[in-house]
Amino acid sequence: MNSPDRIWTAALVVIGDEILSGRTHDKNIAQIASWLQVQGIRLCEVRVVADDMDAIADAVNALRTAHDYLFTTGGIGPTHDDITVDAVAHALGVPVVIHPEARAILEDYYKDRPGGLTEARLRMARVPEGADLIPNRMSGAPGIKHGNIHLMAGVPHITAQMLDALTGTLEGGVPLLTETIGGFMMESEIADILREIEKAHEGCQIGSYPFFREGRVGANLVIRSTDSKLLSNCVDALIQALEEAGNDVTPGGI
Amino acid sequence: MNSPDRIWTAALVVIGDEILSGRTHDKNIAQIASWLQVQGIRLCEVRVVADDMDAIADAVNALRTAHDYLFTTGGIGPTHDDITVDAVAHALGVPVVIHPEARAILEDYYKDRPGGLTEARLRMARVPEGADLIPNRMSGAPGIKHGNIHLMAGVPHITAQMLDALTGTLEGGVPLLTETIGGFMMESEIADILREIEKAHEGCQIGSYPFFREGRVGANLVIRSTDSKLLSNCVDALIQALEEAGNDVTPGGI
Repeated sequence: MNSPDRIWTAALVVIGDEILSGRTHDKNIAQIASWLQVQGIRLCEVRVVADDMDAIADAVNALRTAHDYLFTTGGIGPTHDDITVDAVAHALGVPVVIHPEARAILEDYYKDRPGGLTEARLRMARVPEGADLIPNRMSGAPGIKHGNIHLMAGVPHITAQMLDALTGTLEGGVPLLTETIGGFMMESEIADILREIEKAHEGCQIGSYPFFREGRVGANLVIRSTDSKLLSNCVDALIQALEEAGNDVTPGGI
Repeated sequence: MNSPDRIWTAALVVIGDEILSGRTHDKNIAQIASWLQVQGIRLCEVRVVADDMDAIADAVNALRTAHDYLFTTGGIGPTHDDITVDAVAHALGVPVVIHPEARAILEDYYKDRPGGLTEARLRMARVPEGADLIPNRMSGAPGIKHGNIHLMAGVPHITAQMLDALTGTLEGGVPLLTETIGGFMMESEIADILREIEKAHEGCQIGSYPFFREGRVGANLVIRSTDSKLLSNCVDALIQALEEAGNDVTPGGI
């Protein structure tokens, strides 16, 4: 059995020229990060790489051994620029094969659509040999699981479906709990308070995230701990110290 | 002199637990990617890492030698969790020093504010030895340039100011030109056309980005080339082939 204190970690490889060109704003990092947190798994690193075999394979090999779980998003569709399956198979040193269950799913999904299961559509049944499928109710085409690697769609709605199918299936640890407080306070005026309160509350981390809004500066403070009692003590002490220094504090953040 | 065909590349390290927790949606990747494209510099890789000395230093050292330019965002503010300067200095093997010009900027900026230039605020004048400053009109605290490394703010508005100050100062190549067309067409039905048209137009790449909108599936197609004539030939051929196959194509994308 694993220690309850064991921290489970994950990494994510976002695959796509459209993110690196600035054309598309990525939504999968935040979506997968939030989902992992609920599973008790900590997202430790993300790499965004181009639609390039070697770039994908290098990132996959660097991260799959360094973390408990690896996720990828993008590049598993039917078009010529979808090369994630080939790149992951290359990274693992296994051939690409047609997964019979994926073929059956796609045959069924396309049976009443013009053209049926064309060669392009059959590309979406290709997997690195030894893989299992991750169901996707939205478009038929499944995600792919190979060992600790999970290949998800690039379209955020489809990735959401795949995450839903994975919920509760990955072993994780104690979820990291967070509380947020915020205020129109200057980071540089509260920096000493943050440092001292964090130092006095072992097992808690305080992150400070400044913002500009409505022409005013402010900061949201995120307090993190795996222990709810330690967390609430730290939050209470922080609010008291900030208010004593003359700040209005908004629970939940601004 | 460099060849006009030389491709200039950049990498970005996004620093921040708030991105990895899913709490904050990153806006700097798209912002910096778009800005670089105008400078004729290609963003080739992004890594998102935690507020951790070794994680930051490892990413910086892996990427600064592999690319012409390296950017970082986040972790250069006044609070205890802002450790980017220390991590980059550690990566470079140089000490952290107070930059006299940065100190003067901050002294001036805070001279009429309560507390003046406190110790916490003075943290924002710390740089890896040998660095120059990147001006920032918004909050006084400057960005930092050390060799090919550019340390930018985490707050997107402030990073925008710093990018503005850098515009035209970095040597780049021929900008990559792009055109987008879109339609409510299924990727799996147009996959063959995309592959054939790309094959017939050397010097052009076609990316296909599917979406679900208003209950319908579609795809935006992005055609990229450094040559405007090649680009427009490819776009024309692609539109013609798609329309002949019965698709409605919207220039500019959907």
